[in-house]
Parts: sequence; C-alpha cells; structure tokens
Amino acid sequence: MSKEYVVAVVGATGAVGSRMIKMLEASSLPIKEVKLLATHRSAGKILQFKSQDLTVETTTEQSFEGVDIALFSAGGSVSAKFAPYAVKSGAVVVDNTSNFRMHSDVPLVVPEVNAQALDTHNGIIACPNCSTIQMMVALEPIRQQFGLERIIVSTYQAVSGAGAKAIAETERQIQEVVNDKKDPKDVLAEILPAGGDKKHYPIAFNALPQIDVFTENDYTYEEMKMTKETKKIMADDTIAVSATCVRIPVILAHSESIYIETKTVAPIAEVKAAIANFPGAVLQDDPSQQLYPQAVTAAGHRETFVGRIRKDLDAEKGIHMWVVSDNLLKGAAWNSVQIAETLHERGLVRPTKDLKFDLI
Amino acid sequence: MSKEYVVAVVGATGAVGSRMIKMLEASSLPIKEVKLLATHRSAGKILQFKSQDLTVETTTEQSFEGVDIALFSAGGSVSAKFAPYAVKSGAVVVDNTSNFRMHSDVPLVVPEVNAQALDTHNGIIACPNCSTIQMMVALEPIRQQFGLERIIVSTYQAVSGAGAKAIAETERQIQEVVNDKKDPKDVLAEILPAGGDKKHYPIAFNALPQIDVFTENDYTYEEMKMTKETKKIMADDTIAVSATCVRIPVILAHSESIYIETKTVAPIAEVKAAIANFPGAVLQDDPSQQLYPQAVTAAGHRETFVGRIRKDLDAEKGIHMWVVSDNLLKGAAWNSVQIAETLHERGLVRPTKDLKFDLI
Repeated sequence: MSKEYVVAVVGATGAVGSRMIKMLEASSLPIKEVKLLATHRSAGKILQFKSQDLTVETTTEQSFEGVDIALFSAGGSVSAKFAPYAVKSGAVVVDNTSNFRMHSDVPLVVPEVNAQALDTHNGIIACPNCSTIQMMVALEPIRQQFGLERIIVSTYQAVSGAGAKAIAETERQIQEVVNDKKDPKDVLAEILPAGGDKKHYPIAFNALPQIDVFTENDYTYEEMKMTKETKKIMADDTIAVSATCVRIPVILAHSESIYIETKTVAPIAEVKAAIANFPGAVLQDDPSQQLYPQAVTAAGHRETFVGRIRKDLDAEKGIHMWVVSDNLLKGAAWNSVQIAETLHERGLVRPTKDLKFDLI
Repeated sequence: MSKEYVVAVVGATGAVGSRMIKMLEASSLPIKEVKLLATHRSAGKILQFKSQDLTVETTTEQSFEGVDIALFSAGGSVSAKFAPYAVKSGAVVVDNTSNFRMHSDVPLVVPEVNAQALDTHNGIIACPNCSTIQMMVALEPIRQQFGLERIIVSTYQAVSGAGAKAIAETERQIQEVVNDKKDPKDVLAEILPAGGDKKHYPIAFNALPQIDVFTENDYTYEEMKMTKETKKIMADDTIAVSATCVRIPVILAHSESIYIETKTVAPIAEVKAAIANFPGAVLQDDPSQQLYPQAVTAAGHRETFVGRIRKDLDAEKGIHMWVVSDNLLKGAAWNSVQIAETLHERGLVRPTKDLKFDLI
C-alpha cells in the first residue's frame, strides 16, 4: 500500500484555508490525517473534514512533527516564520503567500504550466499570486504553439483577494449606498485598497486602480508580481509584461482583459483549439450566443475560463482575450492542493536534507 | 445686444436630458427660452429651468420652429427621424446618439480636441460615445506633443450608460444579493448587457465583457465606436485602436485602463505637464499620496481625470494610464452643451441652407 500523508493547513479558518480543506476532501491525494493550524485566537474552533470534527490548534515551531505536506495561507509573516520549521520537521511546504515566491531556491508553480519545476524543490514550493495563475493557464497553450513576445493586462479583481475584512467592508458600504442612500464617495473605508497603506477608499460602486502598495517605479506590488512571476513561471525573462491591477465591487472571481503579442502569427481558430485542449482551461467563446466568461459563473469552479478571443485590429501578432477564474480556488486553495497532488504523483513528497531557509 | 437663443432639449426627461438642462442653467450660452421635448408618454410633465416651471411637450416634426439649437438625447431612432426636421426648421442640432456620428457630413466633436471641425457643419453635429470622449481628452495633449501610434484600452463602464432601466436593474440585483442572500448568478436580468440582445446577465457583483451587441469581427459595437470615432475625431486613420469594453457594477463614471504608444519618446514628466495644462483634463497622479482618479470622486464633475501615468516596463514609447470621467456629463450632457457654447463662440449658430439629411 502506498504511503498516506499527514497534511497540515496553516490558516485553516481563513477564506483560503477553509477552501483548502474542501479541496483536500475532493482530492486524489492519499490522506491519513488533516491537521488544522491557525493563530492562538482561532485555536479550539471545530471544523469539519469529511464529516469528521477537527479542532484547530495554534501554529508553533513544533506543529509540523509528523506532517508530510503543509499548506500555508496565513499571511507572509506566518510563512516566513513557520515554513522553515515545517521543512526542518520533514514536511514539504506549499506556500500560498508572496513570501518565498521570488526566492531562487523555491519553485513557483502552476501545475498545468511548469510541474517540472517541482522536481528540484528544496522543501518549499510557492503558489503564485491569484491574478498571475489564471493568466498563466490561459496563455501557456498559446506560448507553447506560437511563442509569447509581450503581455499587457488590465485586471478586474474581486475584493475577496483582500480577505474577509474586505468582503465585509464591501457589503457594508453597498448596503449604506443602496439601503441608506449614502453617496458612494462618503461611505466609511478602512481596509481597501490596501490594508497596510495610509489612505482607504470606498469600493462600493467604484473601481480602485491600486492593489497592494506602490513600488518605486509607480507600479503597485500586485502589478509587479504579475510581471516577475510570469517570467519565473514561464522560465523566460524576455517576455514583456506590464499590468494595471484594479479592484472592483465583485466578491468572487478575478476577470482580466489580456492583450498579447505572439512570436509567430497565431490563427484565432488554432488559439481557441489550443486553449480548449489545455488542462484546467475552459473555452467560453461564442459571440453569436453571447458566450463569454463571467465572474458570477466562474465562482465556485476550479477551471480558468477564456473567451472574447480576437485579433487585434492592427497588430498582425496581437490577440485580445478575457480570462476569468475563482481567485480563491485556482487563484489559491485549488492551485495549492493541486501542487500537493502533483508532488505526490511525481514522488516528491519527502523530507528535505539541505535546509535552504533561515529559522527565525 | 447679441442674439439670445431658443434651445430645445429632446429627451428632456431622461438621465442625460435632465443633466443637459442643468448644464444649460450653468452655461455661458445666451438663452432666451428652453423648450423641453420628449415622447408622448412624458408630455405634460413639469420640469424646472432656472426656477421656472416648463411643461414637457411631445416631439413632432413641427416642434423646432423658432428653435436655434436642438440638443438630442432620446435614442438613435428619434434623432434619425426628427433631427433633419430640426435642421430644416433652421436649428443647429447637437446629437448625443450614435445615429449620425460616422456620417461624412457630420462633425464628431470633443470641443477641447477638434472644435475646428464645427466650422464646416451642415446643421448636425454629433457628440461622440461616452467612452471615446474621455479617452480623447486624456490623449489629445499627448498626441499634440509626441504623436500617437496606437491605443489599447480596457474599459470599466458604469451602468448609467445603459439608461435608467439598467440603473434600476443593478440596484435591485444588488439588494437581492446583499439583503436577500441570493447567489449573484441567480438574480433576474432583463436589461444588461445590451437591451436589444437575446440574452441578459446579472451585473451585480459581476463584470460583463459586452457593451452593445457584437459586430461581425467579434468586437462589440461599443468597442468599434472607440476605434472609429477616435480616428475621426483625431482626423488620423493611421492611429491603431483596439478596445475591450466591460460593464461593471458602478452607477456613475467610466474608468479606462489605457495603453498608448507615442511616435516619439515621451518623458513621463512632460506627459503629466501636458495633461495638467490641457483644458478639461485634471491630473490626479501621485502614488506617494495614493492619488489617482476614481469613479466615485469623478461623478458629478465635468472634467476628465487622469492618473497612474507610467512608462511601460519594456516598450520605450509605451505609456499606461487610468482615465475617469462622469459618463453622463463629459460623456454626454456636458459635451453636448459645450458644443453648443463653442458653436456660439465661433458664430456658427445659424440655419443650414443645403439640407444633407433625409426627411423620413
């Protein structure tokens, strides 16, 4: 009988953590035991895994003894502190935060795109940013056949990407405008656009062209994540990527308006076929039937939906498309569990001897 | 004493018409009388102009006798039918519908950009599509200094662009989700994405990549309007323009993520200065202060707000920006009244002798 794993979920009570539990329930991974970890504040809570009651425990440096796979989604600082202890304890870490993504010893993986990057892992594998993941699923089939010269992307991102507090803030603001007839510009804002930034703005009936804080080049960190992570995942520094990341009043599922230029001319019918045949991608593209991806229909699904595929009106190698996926599933929980499944399939769930990450 | 005008507003009871009346109240145009016209259904309604009660009348072929300027915003079919009678009666028509925009005898005007096109008018002047107008105000100062090679635009458009019924539908759907806990994908949709199309989809907590119906090339009419109108307004068929037009759950003000390539390298500081100095444009761009345009702060204002201006990360002549304006003011009512003001200033409010448009 093949080995069965002890799987830890760090940040089990959060929006992504709870979905990781659901994805593990439906997973092909042979699971012996699930261990739920969170902050001291959430310890003692009872959550279900396959109708079984599990008690949430406080994450400590000792929590990972006997753990084979640890899924982290409790914020960058929690990963920074505890992931190295998990590796030291013999676990393989799949980290859903940005903390290790650009670390040269950490593979950054979208299984449909670069599963082979897992083969040389050093105990920690990073799950890319939600907005990057769905773009990779949509573009990899095109890159494989026609090459990829450049990407210009404008996002329409859901508030759930900023956490439970951002969802609550959005719903409260919308109620104040719709029920209490407040002017949208006058509702109280305390979370968005970025929890850690100085100023906060309403999201209800608004579009905020800031996700995460600004970097020195006047792009935001979210925008630079899309640029840097794309180059790392596709293992090609020459792909030009510029992003404009925007938050809109949607709860679940990110939408993206993507423009690409391919290296060779890509006939639209072949692009559509490539996407339709790519694992994890679903082609929804029929203007005559008004068929295109939508946030409300993508929510709750693990696939990435692609439509509105059409030639640029002028650039011979230019193509536009509309890409939608559930930011908490393929954008986070599902991609993490899928990485764990792929590690298992490739025989890569094993202790790491040469510890590359500092214990702090 | 200079002449004072009789000004007719056709579609006076609509969202744009009511704003035209407000813009006329604040206008520098010498106004003798305002005449309010609408459908038979709205006739008899009392509206205010400068604290004066005015009764709405039914639009007929005879309504324009004695009218000097007629502002039309009652739908393309109303303009098609009545605008030629208004011209025949001696009025100058400013038409806010798409009906005459691409007609070779009709100037398509954003006063800050191409007021000179008014000089050869033949009785009808067209007001461009809302999404085009604000893009023109943002890009013309750049075009003047650095030339314009191409434009790639993704829009974030408010539901008010689809009329009062779309606003009501949006608010109802949002209430059903927020108050009645309905799943966003299950709310009743009867109007959006396009009143005249077969299928309708929810807009609450959604982003719909369809505005107006699809054309044969898989772009929507809204997207093709941005392409064709830009070339006509800037009087340059060589500018490459491809658009992706998206409706989001915002009531007022369109936002646009615009990428351009200039003909000569445009230093960002000079681009910002050009926009700041351009009439009708307001620069809101300071990442260190999280200053950028927003729909909720642009609503109710006549200006076009521009920010997030930054170099593309790879293309030497590539620039990204974020452009926001009130779609019912600069996008419709204000641009129309501003055209009327400009006609007056240039001495162009006069009867047209050579009638170019068919009476039907």
